[in-house]
Amino acid sequence: MRKEANRDVVSEISDFLRKRGLEPRIVTWKDRTLLVTHRNPAPEEIAPLKENKIVERIAHPTLRAQLASREFQDSTSPVRVGSAEIGRTKLAIIAGPCSVENREQLLKAARAAKECGASLLRGGVFKPRTSPYEFQGLGEAGLRLLAQAREETGLPVITEVLEPGKVDLVAKYADMLQIGARNMQNFSLLKAVGKSKMPVLLKRGMMATIEEWLQAAEYILLEGNPDVVLCERGIRTFEKATRNTLDLAAVPVLRKTTHLPILVDPSHATGCRDFVGPMAKAAVAAGADGLMIETHPSPETALSDPHQQLTLEEFASLLRELELVAKAVGRAIR
Amino acid sequence: MRKEANRDVVSEISDFLRKRGLEPRIVTWKDRTLLVTHRNPAPEEIAPLKENKIVERIAHPTLRAQLASREFQDSTSPVRVGSAEIGRTKLAIIAGPCSVENREQLLKAARAAKECGASLLRGGVFKPRTSPYEFQGLGEAGLRLLAQAREETGLPVITEVLEPGKVDLVAKYADMLQIGARNMQNFSLLKAVGKSKMPVLLKRGMMATIEEWLQAAEYILLEGNPDVVLCERGIRTFEKATRNTLDLAAVPVLRKTTHLPILVDPSHATGCRDFVGPMAKAAVAAGADGLMIETHPSPETALSDPHQQLTLEEFASLLRELELVAKAVGRAIR
Amino acid sequence: MRKEANRDVVSEISDFLRKRGLEPRIVTWKDRTLLVTHRNPAPEEIAPLKENKIVERIAHPTLRAQLASREFQDSTSPVRVGSAEIGRTKLAIIAGPCSVENREQLLKAARAAKECGASLLRGGVFKPRTSPYEFQGLGEAGLRLLAQAREETGLPVITEVLEPGKVDLVAKYADMLQIGARNMQNFSLLKAVGKSKMPVLLKRGMMATIEEWLQAAEYILLEGNPDVVLCERGIRTFEKATRNTLDLAAVPVLRKTTHLPILVDPSHATGCRDFVGPMAKAAVAAGADGLMIETHPSPETALSDPHQQLTLEEFASLLRELELVAKAVGRAIR
Amino acid sequence: MRKEANRDVVSEISDFLRKRGLEPRIVTWKDRTLLVTHRNPAPEEIAPLKENKIVERIAHPTLRAQLASREFQDSTSPVRVGSAEIGRTKLAIIAGPCSVENREQLLKAARAAKECGASLLRGGVFKPRTSPYEFQGLGEAGLRLLAQAREETGLPVITEVLEPGKVDLVAKYADMLQIGARNMQNFSLLKAVGKSKMPVLLKRGMMATIEEWLQAAEYILLEGNPDVVLCERGIRTFEKATRNTLDLAAVPVLRKTTHLPILVDPSHATGCRDFVGPMAKAAVAAGADGLMIETHPSPETALSDPHQQLTLEEFASLLRELELVAKAVGRAIR
Repeated sequence: MRKEANRDVVSEISDFLRKRGLEPRIVTWKDRTLLVTHRNPAPEEIAPLKENKIVERIAHPTLRAQLASREFQDSTSPVRVGSAEIGRTKLAIIAGPCSVENREQLLKAARAAKECGASLLRGGVFKPRTSPYEFQGLGEAGLRLLAQAREETGLPVITEVLEPGKVDLVAKYADMLQIGARNMQNFSLLKAVGKSKMPVLLKRGMMATIEEWLQAAEYILLEGNPDVVLCERGIRTFEKATRNTLDLAAVPVLRKTTHLPILVDPSHATGCRDFVGPMAKAAVAAGADGLMIETHPSPETALSDPHQQLTLEEFASLLRELELVAKAVGRAIR
Repeated sequence: MRKEANRDVVSEISDFLRKRGLEPRIVTWKDRTLLVTHRNPAPEEIAPLKENKIVERIAHPTLRAQLASREFQDSTSPVRVGSAEIGRTKLAIIAGPCSVENREQLLKAARAAKECGASLLRGGVFKPRTSPYEFQGLGEAGLRLLAQAREETGLPVITEVLEPGKVDLVAKYADMLQIGARNMQNFSLLKAVGKSKMPVLLKRGMMATIEEWLQAAEYILLEGNPDVVLCERGIRTFEKATRNTLDLAAVPVLRKTTHLPILVDPSHATGCRDFVGPMAKAAVAAGADGLMIETHPSPETALSDPHQQLTLEEFASLLRELELVAKAVGRAIR
Repeated sequence: MRKEANRDVVSEISDFLRKRGLEPRIVTWKDRTLLVTHRNPAPEEIAPLKENKIVERIAHPTLRAQLASREFQDSTSPVRVGSAEIGRTKLAIIAGPCSVENREQLLKAARAAKECGASLLRGGVFKPRTSPYEFQGLGEAGLRLLAQAREETGLPVITEVLEPGKVDLVAKYADMLQIGARNMQNFSLLKAVGKSKMPVLLKRGMMATIEEWLQAAEYILLEGNPDVVLCERGIRTFEKATRNTLDLAAVPVLRKTTHLPILVDPSHATGCRDFVGPMAKAAVAAGADGLMIETHPSPETALSDPHQQLTLEEFASLLRELELVAKAVGRAIR
Repeated sequence: MRKEANRDVVSEISDFLRKRGLEPRIVTWKDRTLLVTHRNPAPEEIAPLKENKIVERIAHPTLRAQLASREFQDSTSPVRVGSAEIGRTKLAIIAGPCSVENREQLLKAARAAKECGASLLRGGVFKPRTSPYEFQGLGEAGLRLLAQAREETGLPVITEVLEPGKVDLVAKYADMLQIGARNMQNFSLLKAVGKSKMPVLLKRGMMATIEEWLQAAEYILLEGNPDVVLCERGIRTFEKATRNTLDLAAVPVLRKTTHLPILVDPSHATGCRDFVGPMAKAAVAAGADGLMIETHPSPETALSDPHQQLTLEEFASLLRELELVAKAVGRAIR
C-alpha cells in the first residue's frame, strides 16, 4: 500500500481479500503497510486491486518465505544496528568472546575488537549448553557488563536470547538479538523477537535446509520486523574433522533468493582456531556481508569453546589479511 | 539420601560437597533427596560420606546424563500417565490425529483408539510449522476438545507444548506434555516442563545424537521430574524416499544406557502411510516400550500431514498384527 | 517377446525401435528376450507392436531402473543359490565370519551355521579395507577353504569380489558373488558380475539413496542376469553410537518399488554385538527376506570386525528367538 | 634409506624389521627406498638402526596414512603433469567439458582453456553414470580426441579411469589419471593407478571422511607413486539447494595433515553454474592449490551435467576475477 493508506483503506482491501479466501495479514513494514496473503491469488481474483491507486505494488513471490524473497525486494536490505550497518560494501565484523565471563575479559576483548576495526561486540550471557552440568552463562549480570563495554568502546552489542519471556530483558541492554542454531525453529521465540522490532541475527539450525531457514526468518518478518540478518554457522554431517561442516555455498544460494544480509561464523563452523582464518577469507570471497568471530584474551582459560576462540593478536592479524581479500571482491573492512 | 534425611542433614552434606568444589545440586527425586555433583569426585574426597548412615547410596555414573543413566538406576523406570503406564510388559500405544481439527474428528479418532486398545490419545493444538503460512493449530480451544475426548473415552491425553509461558495452560488440560523434535534443545522449555512435574514425552531432535538426547532429558530430570519418556521419530539424512530415517538401533542403544522408557513414532519417521505398519512391527521387535501412531477418520482431508495418518480401519488392523509380534518378543498390546 | 521369438524377429523389432530413436537393448532374461528402450515411448510410436503376436507384453515402468521395477514384474522374484532360495516364505539366513582366517575357524563357523538352520555360508577372502595396513584377506587360498566348507556342510557359499578381473576366479569357487557397499557404484564391476550370470548380492552403498541402489542393480540386470538380491547394511549419518544407521524403512520402500528380494545385515549396520539381535528381529518384522549375520568361533581374536561378530552360541540363541518373530509375520526360519 | 642403499642393504634391514614383527614393505619413492612398517615400533626395537649410516631418516607418523602425512614430509610436494605443476604458488586450473562429445566441442573448450590461462584440460570419456540408460562416454575414441586437443594447445590432459583393466589404455593417451568420487575406495583401482606411476587426481568420495580419503591416497603412494593430488568436490548431506555440500574446511584440515596438493571442484560440488564463481573464489581464498572447473562451448546442449558447466565467456570472466583473489592470498593464476 502507498504510504498515505490509512486504517480504513487498509481494512477495506483486507476485507476484499478475505472474501476471496486469501486470509490477508496486515503487516507494518518500515513506512508502509503490507497485506500478505497465504497463497498466490489468480490474476482475475484481484483484478480490481490493479486499478486501485492506493495499492502501490502487487508482488507474487513464489517462495513460502514471501517477505524474505528477492522477488519481494530485489536488492540487499541493509540492517542498521547502532553505529553499524550490515549489508553494505563495508563488511560487518562481529567479534568478542563465546561467553561473557568477567569485566576484565570482556573489556579487553571489546577494546581489541574496536581497535582492529570490528563493528559489533558479541558475548553470550544465556548459554544454551548440551549438558545441564556445563556453564550456563552470567545472565543479567552479563548483560550489564555488555552495556558497560558498549559505553566504553562505542561498539553496539549482540547477545543470544533463549526464551520469549526474556526478550524484553535482553532488549533493554543489547542492540541486536541473536537466535542461536538450536532455536532456529523455536517459533514462539521467533515471533517474540519479531514483535520486539529489534535487529535480529538468525543463525542457521545445524539440521536446517536453506529453505527452512528462510521460512524461520519469515516468522520474524511477518511480525513487521524487517531487520533480520542471516548467519551461516555450519551444518551437521558425518565428517568429524571439524565441529560442523561450513556450508559456504549457502552464501550465493541465499544471495540469489533473499534480500536479507548474510554473515558467516567460521568459529562455530570449524570449532578449531587453526581453521577460522582460512574459512573467514573464504566466506568473504564467497560474497558474505560480514563475519562473526569468537575472540578471547586468553582462550585456554575460557569457560566455553576454548579451542575455537582466537587470541586478540590472531584476530588483529586475521583482519589485516581479510582486508586484502575484501578488496579483491570489491568490499572493505575499514 | 535416605528417606528420613531432613533439610538440615541435606544442607550439611551439601556444604561438605561445596567445600570440595563439587557444586552439588539438591534434587527431589520421588521420595528421596539426591545431591548431584557436576563431576565425579575422587574416592578420597568423599570418603567420610561412605560412613554416613543417612547417605543411602553413592553412584558414579560416567555419562554426562547422570540421572538418565542406567548406572544410576538399573531397570527401566515405568512412567504412569493417568490410567496408562509406559515401560511395562504391556506396550503403550499412543494414537490420534496430527492436529486437533474439530470435535467430531477428534472424538471419532479417540473412540477408535480406545476400542483398538490404545492407551493414550494424542492431538496437536499448538503446531510448530516450518512456514508461518501453514495451519498453526486450534490453541486453547483444542485443549478443551482434548479434555472432552478424555472424559468420553477415559484415555489420558498428550499434546505438544511450544514455550515455557504455555506450560501451565497445557498442564491444566493434558495428562502428558510432549516436547517436539524442534524443541529438543530448547533448554528453557525443558526446565519449565521439568518444574511442572508432569509426565513428559521427549522426542528426539532430527539431527540430535543419542548422547545429546539423553542430556536434554537430564535437563528435565534435574528439576526433580523423573517421569520422562523418550520417543525416536527419525533423524535427518540424505535419503529422501522417507520423510526422515527411522533410527531403530536407538532402541537397543538406549536400553543399554538409560532406564527411561522408549517409544517409537513410525508416522513422522516415514511420512508415508504404507510404511507405518512395517516400521511399527519392527519397533516392537527391536524392543520399544510402545508406539506413537497418527490416526485420522479421513486422512485425505487432514489439515496437516495427510500422507502419514492411518485411517481408523488401518489402525485397527495394524494393532491386530502387532499383537502377534509383541507376543513373539514377550510383550503384549492388550 | 514370446519364448518362440527367434533372432530374426528380435532383430526386426529392434530395427523398428531404433528407427524411432528408442535405442533398444536386447536382453536375454531367463527364457525370454527383452527389448529395453532408453525412454518410455509414446503409445502412437509403438502402436504396430501391440498387434504383433510375437510381442508378449509391453511394459512402461516409470523408474530409471526398469527391469528392477515392480511395474515390470509384480511379485518378488526368488533367487536360487545352490540348495538355498532367497525371496520365499522361509527366510534366508547367511552366516559366517567377516574374514576367512583359517580352516578350523571357517569349518567351526560353517558347521554351527548349518546346525542352526542357516541357508548360506559367508566369509571374506578379498577384503576392502580402509587402510592399506589392515588385513587384506587370504585371496585364492581362502576361496579353496570356502569350497571345502561347502563340501563338508552342503551350504552354498558367498564371498565378495572387488574387481572385474577377479570375477571368473571367484565364480569358480563361490555360489553367489557379493558386491560390497564401497563398490555399489563400481559400474565396471556391476557389468562384469552381470555377465557372469552368477547370483549376486548387492549391498547398499553407505551414502546411496534407494533410487541409486536400484539403478546399480539395473546395471547387473541389463546384462541379462536376473538373479540379484539387495542387502541393506546401514547408511552413514551423523550418529556415532552405531557404526552406521540401519535404514530399515528401506525394506518396505523397496518392497513397494522392486521385485528383487531384500536382505538386511545388522552386523555391519550396528558394528556392535549387543545390537545385532534386536536389529535382526526388527528386520524380520519389517518384512525382510532374510539376514546376513557375522559369526565367529572366537570373535575376540578375529582379524577384522571383532566387535560385531556373534559367538556361535549367541547365533544359535538368536535364531531360536527369530523363529518366533518370523512366525508372527507369516515367515519361517526352518 | 640413503640414495646409495643397494638391494642387499635394503634386504638386510628389511629382514631386521621382519624379525621384530614389523611387516616392512619396500617402497621405491622418487630416488630413495623406503621401508614402511605396519605399526610404529618402540624406540628400543629399532635402536640399532639409529646408528646405521645407510638409514637416512626414521619417521614416526601417527596417521594410518603414513606416506601422505605431513609428519613424513613437511612441505607441500608439487606434482608435475606435462607442462603443468600442481602445488606451487601459481594455481593449477583444470578446465574442460564434463564429457568429451565431439572434436569441435572439445577443441573449442581446449582453446578457451589455454587462452584464459588454464594449466590442464579435462574431459570425461568413460563416464560413471548412476543409471545404465544415461550417456556412458565415447571410450577410446574420446581418448584420441583428448590427445589431439593436447597436440593443438599444448595443455596436458586428464581423464577418469574406471577399472584396473583400463589403466594402461588411458595412460597411453592421458597425462594424468582421475579417480572419481564413486571409486575413491575402489582399492583394486587405486593399486593399479599406483603401479602405473602416472600422476593421479584422487577425488573425495561423497561419503568419505577426510581420514578415509587420506588412507585411499595411501594405497596409491604405497605402490611407490608419489604423484597424488587430492580434489574436494562436495560431500552428501541433507541440503538439496546444491548438488553436494562443498566442504571447503577440508582445505585447511588437509594442509595441516598432508603434504599432497589440494584442488577444489566447485562445478560438481554445487551442480549449478551460478554458484561456481563464488565457490571458486572461496576455494582460492581458503588456500587451495587450484581448481577443476567444467566448461563447455554450449552447456545447454551438453550430454551430461548441462546445469553446472560454464560457458567459455563465463570462464574467461571468472579467471580474471580469480586473479585478484589469488593475489590477495599470495598466489597467482598466470
